[in-house]
Amino acid sequence: MAERESTVAHGPEHGLERMIFFSDAVFAIVITLLVIDIHAPHLPFGSPDRDYWISLINLGPEFLGFFISFFVIGFFWAGHHRAMSLASHYSPRLIFPNLMLLASVAAMPFFTAFASANPMMRVPIFCYCAWLLVAAVLNRRLQAIVTHPPVVSETASPELIAVTRERGTAVVLGSLTAMAVSLIVPWLGQVALCTIPLWRLALRRFAGRPR
Amino acid sequence: MAERESTVAHGPEHGLERMIFFSDAVFAIVITLLVIDIHAPHLPFGSPDRDYWISLINLGPEFLGFFISFFVIGFFWAGHHRAMSLASHYSPRLIFPNLMLLASVAAMPFFTAFASANPMMRVPIFCYCAWLLVAAVLNRRLQAIVTHPPVVSETASPELIAVTRERGTAVVLGSLTAMAVSLIVPWLGQVALCTIPLWRLALRRFAGRPR
Amino acid sequence: MAERESTVAHGPEHGLERMIFFSDAVFAIVITLLVIDIHAPHLPFGSPDRDYWISLINLGPEFLGFFISFFVIGFFWAGHHRAMSLASHYSPRLIFPNLMLLASVAAMPFFTAFASANPMMRVPIFCYCAWLLVAAVLNRRLQAIVTHPPVVSETASPELIAVTRERGTAVVLGSLTAMAVSLIVPWLGQVALCTIPLWRLALRRFAGRPR
Amino acid sequence: MAERESTVAHGPEHGLERMIFFSDAVFAIVITLLVIDIHAPHLPFGSPDRDYWISLINLGPEFLGFFISFFVIGFFWAGHHRAMSLASHYSPRLIFPNLMLLASVAAMPFFTAFASANPMMRVPIFCYCAWLLVAAVLNRRLQAIVTHPPVVSETASPELIAVTRERGTAVVLGSLTAMAVSLIVPWLGQVALCTIPLWRLALRRFAGRPR
Repeated sequence: MAERESTVAHGPEHGLERMIFFSDAVFAIVITLLVIDIHAPHLPFGSPDRDYWISLINLGPEFLGFFISFFVIGFFWAGHHRAMSLASHYSPRLIFPNLMLLASVAAMPFFTAFASANPMMRVPIFCYCAWLLVAAVLNRRLQAIVTHPPVVSETASPELIAVTRERGTAVVLGSLTAMAVSLIVPWLGQVALCTIPLWRLALRRFAGRPR
Repeated sequence: MAERESTVAHGPEHGLERMIFFSDAVFAIVITLLVIDIHAPHLPFGSPDRDYWISLINLGPEFLGFFISFFVIGFFWAGHHRAMSLASHYSPRLIFPNLMLLASVAAMPFFTAFASANPMMRVPIFCYCAWLLVAAVLNRRLQAIVTHPPVVSETASPELIAVTRERGTAVVLGSLTAMAVSLIVPWLGQVALCTIPLWRLALRRFAGRPR
Repeated sequence: MAERESTVAHGPEHGLERMIFFSDAVFAIVITLLVIDIHAPHLPFGSPDRDYWISLINLGPEFLGFFISFFVIGFFWAGHHRAMSLASHYSPRLIFPNLMLLASVAAMPFFTAFASANPMMRVPIFCYCAWLLVAAVLNRRLQAIVTHPPVVSETASPELIAVTRERGTAVVLGSLTAMAVSLIVPWLGQVALCTIPLWRLALRRFAGRPR
Repeated sequence: MAERESTVAHGPEHGLERMIFFSDAVFAIVITLLVIDIHAPHLPFGSPDRDYWISLINLGPEFLGFFISFFVIGFFWAGHHRAMSLASHYSPRLIFPNLMLLASVAAMPFFTAFASANPMMRVPIFCYCAWLLVAAVLNRRLQAIVTHPPVVSETASPELIAVTRERGTAVVLGSLTAMAVSLIVPWLGQVALCTIPLWRLALRRFAGRPR
């Protein structure tokens, strides 16, 4: 029994498990590294309380950037999670597209720091949104591979597959919107990411699934 | 056999497993990143032994902050651990509250470094305790979702559920106490976190479960 | 049942699983730490768009280095993945060779940063390629242990074992080529890593397996 | 079936699995963070090859420190690994001793950097060895809990339990030796860690198991 168990555990089917695990670890590390770029203010001993509060308020853009990126990466993880739950067969063709998605996610802390260090400026916010678009496209491409044979599970419901793809497409359209908005009104760029659920709704309507 | 195994492993039930895994990874990374903010002193070659000891003693507040936060985050992890062991059904409604808890935990190294870099000062210690309160509230909220249907396991003992919730509430009350104390006597703030077990005892008495 | 399950899970067969897991985590952390060395430019508020673009273009070598190392480490991970899927018996003799491979991978961010900080220079690129050769040799050595008794699975196909070893050998030969090229034309060094698939093809031909 | 599987997976027995996982992640992160403290030299463009080699040679103590700590932590991980493979019952009494061991391991990068930044000096090397002793004692204490009821597996061989404890004791004695040596001849301190296998041999002889 132990022998067969172990054969199953390390056999080719295990490949999917290990790829998911590796991706989860990368997502977890990226999401946690975001805070490293926020340096704690160090004030002269005995400074008045007011100075400490001011030093914190000055870190406002950094904190905002941290939270936006934390949830953006968190939702990318949740999407990866959802897509992978539809897969049940490992394919070596998954490796490279998955690595490309992870590389784009791993570079997010740089673009977060670039936008936070130069708040309200056009180029950093545009780059942030453009990079998000890169990640969204790579994510959508991986979802396409995962929700098609030979990777997709035979028991995955077509409804769930359609919803997963729609969500992926909505992130692409939302990032595109944010990128366009950031060119005109820079500070509205990251706010425009909130159009992602609207795009999802629109796509759902368009496909005739109103719920 | 291999096929069915793999369907089970990647099916919807697997969602809980992957969420726990992702959370564990975030807790582990945060707890390990704490030490990064303590920079090793670099003295001129041939400095007398005494200077090395002094340079270490000067790092006292940093070390104290590291150990306090290490165990605070360690106990948050243990609590997450305990709560999740009561769950057996995945629900997409877990994703966002769990991400919020993880975001609050991921920001702990910043508040630890802020309090360590400005030892004995009111605002940094107050912020540390206030942020702990935020994490404690988000933790309590996640525990409420986990210990209710549809997530809770049918075989989880009501006693264990009650104890888990009490522990979560005790952390909220202890952080609140620490926050209040830090306003009056700053350096006592983090010490007041030791009231957490007292609150747990009080809640247990109040609920009529004296053991 | 729970008892037996748990005995299986923590028994000696579990050793392989835990070693794979530990290695995956190290690969994931190294791959994500690469981006930390790219510091986001911080420009005076209100700088013209052009200055932001220039500051990004100046980071070109750092980004190129990040992506090359990301995929180099990613493929090392995929190779580790492939080799380990052929194993089904744990042996304490795996621990040290695996730790040596992980140590060489963990040092990659240093050599990446060294080559990126001094672009086009002979010594940093030579060191990068030479270190890659060290990692490739340690990788090939681990593959040899994994694809021989007592570690190798009885059900692993001889064809797959041969292909895995060939791939490992191709990485050694490709790194050696890159090292030699970097001595003559430094900037071509990392480009010469693209000979790895050619070496693989050549080895396959040589072994009489033309597909 | 899926239901029962999932109950097993998240039931109380799962606690051990999750604690092992969390510990593995902490070990993996600490081991990988060691390299972060080695900063890549950045020379003026066009510097002669010789200057690059000199800048690398100057990093010698940092590299030596990295490799020593990498293998020290790697062997701590392997020991944790070996001890935990003897356990099969989760106990909440494991949480705190395991967190203490992890805290001591997580602080190793600081002591490594302190010793590397001040090479050949008595205090940093003494502190490194003394901290290793702390970690070794906490490790030995955890092993004692793991190899006794209620945690130990009923099927664990008494021989394996004795060997595991001996190895833990040998690390304590070796760290103690290194600490004593570092007081007299500082640079020999870390070298004296090589007495660990000798202590293991001596303990084995003493217990009458000469192989």
